[in-house]
Amino acid sequence: MGPGPSNPYPEVMQALARPVVGHLDPEFLVLLDETCDRLRAVFRTSNQVTVPISGTGSAGMEAAFVNLVGPGDSVVVGVNGLFGERMCDVAARCGADVVRVEERWGRALDPQHLLEAHPSPKVIAVVHAETSTGVANEIAALGDGKGDALLLVDCVTSLGGIQVEVDAWGVDVAYSGTQKCLGVPPGLAPLTVSDRARERFVGRSQSWYLDLGMIGAYVGAARRYHHTAPISMVYALHAGLGVLLDEGLEQSWARHEVCGRALQRGLEKLGFSLFAEEGHRLPELTTAWVPDGLEDASARRELLDHYGIEVGGGVGEFAGKVWRIGCMGHTARPRNVTLLLGAVEELFLR
Amino acid sequence: MGPGPSNPYPEVMQALARPVVGHLDPEFLVLLDETCDRLRAVFRTSNQVTVPISGTGSAGMEAAFVNLVGPGDSVVVGVNGLFGERMCDVAARCGADVVRVEERWGRALDPQHLLEAHPSPKVIAVVHAETSTGVANEIAALGDGKGDALLLVDCVTSLGGIQVEVDAWGVDVAYSGTQKCLGVPPGLAPLTVSDRARERFVGRSQSWYLDLGMIGAYVGAARRYHHTAPISMVYALHAGLGVLLDEGLEQSWARHEVCGRALQRGLEKLGFSLFAEEGHRLPELTTAWVPDGLEDASARRELLDHYGIEVGGGVGEFAGKVWRIGCMGHTARPRNVTLLLGAVEELFLR
Repeated sequence: MGPGPSNPYPEVMQALARPVVGHLDPEFLVLLDETCDRLRAVFRTSNQVTVPISGTGSAGMEAAFVNLVGPGDSVVVGVNGLFGERMCDVAARCGADVVRVEERWGRALDPQHLLEAHPSPKVIAVVHAETSTGVANEIAALGDGKGDALLLVDCVTSLGGIQVEVDAWGVDVAYSGTQKCLGVPPGLAPLTVSDRARERFVGRSQSWYLDLGMIGAYVGAARRYHHTAPISMVYALHAGLGVLLDEGLEQSWARHEVCGRALQRGLEKLGFSLFAEEGHRLPELTTAWVPDGLEDASARRELLDHYGIEVGGGVGEFAGKVWRIGCMGHTARPRNVTLLLGAVEELFLR
Repeated sequence: MGPGPSNPYPEVMQALARPVVGHLDPEFLVLLDETCDRLRAVFRTSNQVTVPISGTGSAGMEAAFVNLVGPGDSVVVGVNGLFGERMCDVAARCGADVVRVEERWGRALDPQHLLEAHPSPKVIAVVHAETSTGVANEIAALGDGKGDALLLVDCVTSLGGIQVEVDAWGVDVAYSGTQKCLGVPPGLAPLTVSDRARERFVGRSQSWYLDLGMIGAYVGAARRYHHTAPISMVYALHAGLGVLLDEGLEQSWARHEVCGRALQRGLEKLGFSLFAEEGHRLPELTTAWVPDGLEDASARRELLDHYGIEVGGGVGEFAGKVWRIGCMGHTARPRNVTLLLGAVEELFLR
């Protein structure tokens, strides 16, 4: 129950153990195509370029920036947590002119501030679900008001857990990670790109590995070899997306909602104060101040040692002061919420 | 029996299915440390920065270049196959002044040509085992003569299959992939960097994801969070390296040698002509001209459909004309050689 990786679905673990075949094997290519179709369903998009990037969520972030942003391009970035900060770092390494729009950690960004930060940015970039703070940032208003800008959204901790609507919200580039609400081990970064964004790619991206033109030529109809696909992880993602779509996307969102809210109410009953601003709290990632009298690291270690439950610590200035509790993917079950609340009470509050 | 992925060791598949824990879990960190120790043993190095990069072999290549090479740096690259070409592309995207030293595909590079190509290059880069041609390039002479240059070596298809001596040969940066002679599915790139090379890193690499300073701070003692490690794949690599070191590195080289030479002799007996220059033929990857009367794609499809054996096609101008047959990792067994030779005879030569 840390901020990710979550526990993978059982079907995913079985898929991981399937015999490895080649990255150009006809059966693998069918499975890869199905994986991309399933990603389109989960991202709610018809984008042709919808692929699993061969790296973790941060590789997805880098792939999004290096293909879109070149030296001197203006990029507006919303910064209300660690992953907004990371976007600034990645964009700066592409040579971008970064315009930061800051908000206090724990509070949501105001879309209007992002839209007014620059008269004509090439990209507006924002994190949908800030894993460092448990805050949800609003996306739809950015799509409505973006004008000529491209809207780049980090969906690492949102995809599969709360509503994500790439096409309906006007998102141009979105990426995620497998190890959060998709219930798959870490290792791949689902990514989707609108035609509008593809037309504005930089000529030759500074990354060969994450060059979406070349990746698209392998995953797409051309099947041109780029790099060896991580076969076993693609099996796992294929299976995880299957479980998610069998359950139903809305049903998965509802399950995350029920579990997250139960956890948040339960923690408040036990005397914890929630960290994230009310009305913008993620159900899949709960943040709470560590109560007085509890020593952060040793308490988390006790939970791990006595109950096998991982809980994440705060980051940045909130290290030692805040807990981050994930309820994502297969982990988002009422039994896990009940167990954690019982364990906290048993260990620390008796 | 394609040019990779090879069949993983059974122990590796079991490791893949182990429960996923967090990337900061104390038990995972022990396993990560052991993995790095095992990589040092396999690379034959004491380099402190010896890590699994969270991407496939090509991510290892990119990590090597982006941390070492900045705009205007002179980089000598040996080009006698697809992966030498790829090095030129990756180096150019770093802004390098690339000096190409070419040799015909199928022939080995002359180390002296590489050493004489530029009076004071920052980097001399070469592929040890060219997966596109089946040729072994000599490395030790480059280490002897490199002077102030840094020696960067692609060991994707060599590590575990033939002798690799990072420290004894004076290699400064080496990387590999998991899916060849290590007998692990694709998804990680083992990488090692000498202290000498670390002192000459570019200030801030253009890649955030592959920034070896930041990666080293997570894998090393500081344990500073960078990105979420691909837990399951690290389990798999840990297990694969365990199998390899239990067998013994020299014993693994000898097994690859026996199988590869048996395959090459067997193919010649069946009337195939070998493609790679004699004296520089890799045992783990055999290349042979497709005999007259055999249609490349349909013949390879028959092998796959009737025997479940994958064989790779040629690349570049040799597509349709050459076969690439891997005998790597767990696949490097006499029974597989015998089966393939029997299948070829049965299907095409009766």
